Amino acid sequence: MEVITSKALPSKENFSEWYHELIQRAEIMDVRYPVKGLYVWFPFGFKIRQLVYGKLREIMDRDHDEVYFPTLIPETELGKEGEHIKGFEDEVYWVTHGGRDPLDVKLALRPTSETAMYPMFKLWIRSHADLPLKVYQVVNTFRYETKHTRPLIRLREITSFKEAHTAHVDYEDAERQVRDAIKLYKEFYDFLAIPYLVIRRPEWDKFPGAAYTVAFDTVMPDGRTMQIGTVHHLADNFAKTFDIEYETPDGDHAYVHQTCYGISERCIAALISIHGDDLGLVLPFEVSPVQIVIIPILYKGSEEKVMEVARQLYEKLTDMGFRAVLDDSEERPGAKYYKWELKGVPVRLEIGPREVDEGSAIVSFRDERVKHKMSVEEITEERIRKWAAEMKERLLRKATGKMMDKLKFFESVEDANEWIGKGVALIYLCDSLECGEDVEEALKGSVLGRFEEIPEWMELQEKGSCAVCGELGNLTAVAKTY
Amino acid sequence: MEVITSKALPSKENFSEWYHELIQRAEIMDVRYPVKGLYVWFPFGFKIRQLVYGKLREIMDRDHDEVYFPTLIPETELGKEGEHIKGFEDEVYWVTHGGRDPLDVKLALRPTSETAMYPMFKLWIRSHADLPLKVYQVVNTFRYETKHTRPLIRLREITSFKEAHTAHVDYEDAERQVRDAIKLYKEFYDFLAIPYLVIRRPEWDKFPGAAYTVAFDTVMPDGRTMQIGTVHHLADNFAKTFDIEYETPDGDHAYVHQTCYGISERCIAALISIHGDDLGLVLPFEVSPVQIVIIPILYKGSEEKVMEVARQLYEKLTDMGFRAVLDDSEERPGAKYYKWELKGVPVRLEIGPREVDEGSAIVSFRDERVKHKMSVEEITEERIRKWAAEMKERLLRKATGKMMDKLKFFESVEDANEWIGKGVALIYLCDSLECGEDVEEALKGSVLGRFEEIPEWMELQEKGSCAVCGELGNLTAVAKTY
Repeated sequence: MEVITSKALPSKENFSEWYHELIQRAEIMDVRYPVKGLYVWFPFGFKIRQLVYGKLREIMDRDHDEVYFPTLIPETELGKEGEHIKGFEDEVYWVTHGGRDPLDVKLALRPTSETAMYPMFKLWIRSHADLPLKVYQVVNTFRYETKHTRPLIRLREITSFKEAHTAHVDYEDAERQVRDAIKLYKEFYDFLAIPYLVIRRPEWDKFPGAAYTVAFDTVMPDGRTMQIGTVHHLADNFAKTFDIEYETPDGDHAYVHQTCYGISERCIAALISIHGDDLGLVLPFEVSPVQIVIIPILYKGSEEKVMEVARQLYEKLTDMGFRAVLDDSEERPGAKYYKWELKGVPVRLEIGPREVDEGSAIVSFRDERVKHKMSVEEITEERIRKWAAEMKERLLRKATGKMMDKLKFFESVEDANEWIGKGVALIYLCDSLECGEDVEEALKGSVLGRFEEIPEWMELQEKGSCAVCGELGNLTAVAKTY
Repeated sequence: MEVITSKALPSKENFSEWYHELIQRAEIMDVRYPVKGLYVWFPFGFKIRQLVYGKLREIMDRDHDEVYFPTLIPETELGKEGEHIKGFEDEVYWVTHGGRDPLDVKLALRPTSETAMYPMFKLWIRSHADLPLKVYQVVNTFRYETKHTRPLIRLREITSFKEAHTAHVDYEDAERQVRDAIKLYKEFYDFLAIPYLVIRRPEWDKFPGAAYTVAFDTVMPDGRTMQIGTVHHLADNFAKTFDIEYETPDGDHAYVHQTCYGISERCIAALISIHGDDLGLVLPFEVSPVQIVIIPILYKGSEEKVMEVARQLYEKLTDMGFRAVLDDSEERPGAKYYKWELKGVPVRLEIGPREVDEGSAIVSFRDERVKHKMSVEEITEERIRKWAAEMKERLLRKATGKMMDKLKFFESVEDANEWIGKGVALIYLCDSLECGEDVEEALKGSVLGRFEEIPEWMELQEKGSCAVCGELGNLTAVAKTY
């Protein structure tokens, strides 16, 4: 074993430090930009973003059109929907001056785009034939965060907000869209091997202006949950405010019913946090900027023949369409292992003089770190795809296991006290604000809401007596959150 | 010939009206957003954007890394480079409030990203081994435009600014990068069949903070020029301001020399304006959201067999990877022609009962509008690629011819007076500000600058006597500009 001189990462046990260091050292984001809550995407991080959002776009493009609406929203539009503006007014950035002149109407940096889009939807939608309307955009949005900020998780500029907006003939059709959106988001997170809980937010925590909100939460290594996607049924609330009517087949007029759903770069925060380990990133094959690294083991006298075989293998892999790197730098093999492990490269191939003589290579996978010897001829495209699929299965199994360990059912609120902060408490709770507030105060955590879908492995019933008042309640998750 | 009931476009002779109407009716951008100078990308327009910027990214990715820097730049950084801030201070949007609180340090919406990036470059560049550094980003930038705004051309939110930034060991290496950037931009505009002039801006019109600026200008149908790309040599001006030093191989320290170069959605404005005609868009095959439209000509009794053949053809084309549409809507063929011509679809295939019996199809190209009959079997992938290449050649030839007609050489400034506003005047002019101002005042136009490269077909010498003072001057372009 060679001695690695680069400083080791903090252990993942100290999740917060580990995350902060890893983001910088694996070159995901540079945290040194001179404004709080704003970060710079490094080239390597940006490549992960492009791969992850490429998949998200692919999923959306099947059934949505991509559009782009302006960043600047006039105060007059942003303020139209009463609940909506109440939900955002403390965290909106305001543009008040152009050059040295004060603006007549202040402009908000979009915190989200309902109020930019819906005045235009009013113009776009005339008749039932224009429905359903399904669009999305991937944009930067802004929040004046006063809490502790964190790269990819809590930002003042969210650089990569995918927001979809749809309009429908009635409540039921919008309801079907909510189901579809949940399906699409499941597909996306399954692709990333990130386990999730699908939870309906309580009334007091739904999206401002929505009829209801369904959220995707994942459980982070420190036991806090992170919301990684939301789906909102807006009913005709915004349609009434922005006067979005359509002509029905009978010639009547009716308001549309709407939905919106979003995913931000928190999906990448989850990817990093859920799969990473003490050595760095662990990336699923499809979203890894480098999928396969070849490391030649060079000894004096056999350099040339080793390099030749390594180069041949490199060309074979790139011809197959894989993102491969042949690391022929001057560094020692140990330093190379360290570097590519930090970057999460899923497959490593080593070739030394012995392997050249045998026509073999040493294969190892980032998540297992066990070396296998195999014949170079066996390294076919099909085999590599199989490795990728197997690795993803292992990642998902491991991540799901860890999430299961962090969920615990409690009969009473008091029993859950010790657990909150370490994991998610499951209790039965009725829908009332009073019982919700009681629990949040007692546990110093947030009521995430009742399960929209109870995973089978949870082996718990949907209904039970509210742990506070004893009335009929639903299985509900309570946790500290990001 | 069927009567088309939809309102015809204004003639392209009335370029300004034609452009404004076309942008809206071909569904490129919706101009009805309730803030001056801000527009909405429709789904169709956004697809063109993705295709055009896909090519631009492909060109950049060969030799640059994509990154993303924050939108918000603190006043303290933006103000550091004296000339730079002077050039932008009248058109910067300022964020002054977060929620209801005034910010301690005002934040500018990036007008361009030098002052966001270069403080980080200082951290990224340590030694000569880190050089050259070549990055780019595709972002929204903001200008408080007080002049007349126009979609894609003069905007308050530029939605699609591709800006590249590089750092080098010395002036000469940065100079080589300027040449490379010019080459890349030529490749991009050749791909779009857009002709251009490569012109060095006069001292008084260079990028604020640059050593010099080379611009790509194209000539619009009304004879005004539009700047569609710029390449700046920054020398070590910003390096000194932002203290970007590196360690040389000898252990000394030296400032880097930098370049930056940008292209905005004006490339799409040019695409529309240069190739479009009285019927609408004319799009090169590679950047057309719909490349081939199949229009079945349906008569009672033969609908089914025509539709079957049309569907087979559609499947054949999509299997080949082309973006094809089979327009089986209820509209009459004439209305379909009108619609797809408006959208610029390069290839139209018509199939009626006679064609089915013959095994033929009627082919026509958007730029020619002449019908050819050919056997369906001859419509192979290779043949279609050939059509695409031929069409692009025709577009470029036609566009270049038009540009040539709009360039005219004049011995004296007075002679050019009538011409300015109709086209570009070429005169010999020395480098002095006085002579430049004289010409601009006399002609009510802008001195674009001297030719960086004189196209062969221009048949003019580089040097001649300044039309104002008689000293040695350079061949210089003067025009009204967008």
